[in-house]
Amino acid sequence: MSSSTIRILGIDPGLRNTGWGIIDQIGNRLTYVASGVVQPPIKDDLPVRLLGLHEGIKELIAKHKPDEAAVEETFVNAGPRSALLLGQARGVCLMTPSACGLRVGEYSANKVKKSVVGAGHADKNQVQLMINILLPTAKFESADAADALAIAITHAHHRGSLNQKASA
Amino acid sequence: MSSSTIRILGIDPGLRNTGWGIIDQIGNRLTYVASGVVQPPIKDDLPVRLLGLHEGIKELIAKHKPDEAAVEETFVNAGPRSALLLGQARGVCLMTPSACGLRVGEYSANKVKKSVVGAGHADKNQVQLMINILLPTAKFESADAADALAIAITHAHHRGSLNQKASA
Repeated sequence: MSSSTIRILGIDPGLRNTGWGIIDQIGNRLTYVASGVVQPPIKDDLPVRLLGLHEGIKELIAKHKPDEAAVEETFVNAGPRSALLLGQARGVCLMTPSACGLRVGEYSANKVKKSVVGAGHADKNQVQLMINILLPTAKFESADAADALAIAITHAHHRGSLNQKASA
Repeated sequence: MSSSTIRILGIDPGLRNTGWGIIDQIGNRLTYVASGVVQPPIKDDLPVRLLGLHEGIKELIAKHKPDEAAVEETFVNAGPRSALLLGQARGVCLMTPSACGLRVGEYSANKVKKSVVGAGHADKNQVQLMINILLPTAKFESADAADALAIAITHAHHRGSLNQKASA
């Protein structure tokens, strides 16, 4: 990587499947690096499952050395019990990159869709089609990994304004 | 500590105030060790606040060296947005002791009240009065720390059945 390359890790949190996707931003150009899914052991107690998620994210940060991270601001229309469960996974997904020294951006689902497709109410298929156009070399094995790549693209588009906020 | 002493860390999760309390269990006898509140920086972004919570819990585990931990199974009757926020703090509170090698028990609020007061619908004052009786040397600065001590007491009462489950 040249010094002007910014490597971005996008994360789509979930207790069963946490999608992740990494891209490089060189000026306005984006290139695909890697993507996948962290699947913590589902049969263990919750603390052990959350630890599996934490260690999975730490490992991929150690391997791919991203400079910054981005996580989707999950919209929850399910009941409070589901929201609490998802929140627990999301807390670990937000905290872990921060513990590894990465700045972490948060983006709403609508902002992600607008950044990638151009419309806030795009469906999952449209998002995946656009990722294939924006990142032609991308190989993603699941919708969760595609969502994570969409979050990384969104961060690439908006990280400049975060910088202004940070230096203001 | 003798080899038959089990030191227990109780945690009452919250994004602004996470109460903690530590007791020693020697046979049937419980003694107060320490308690307090972790207050992550409230003005920072969520990932940094969650990291403050993670590091606060890691520090008190390093200082007091508990053998096991217990966290309340939070009951959420607020909307999904509040549940998501609390879930994020709770995820970090469950994961961090597990990352430090501690077994972590989870107990419902009703089970905690039943263990400490003898009734599932006890109010906060009754819980605090009973903690003063069960742990006469306890000095807690806040209701969150008292709740955390109540969770630690609950774990002391129920950890035997967890052991049976683990070895089953």
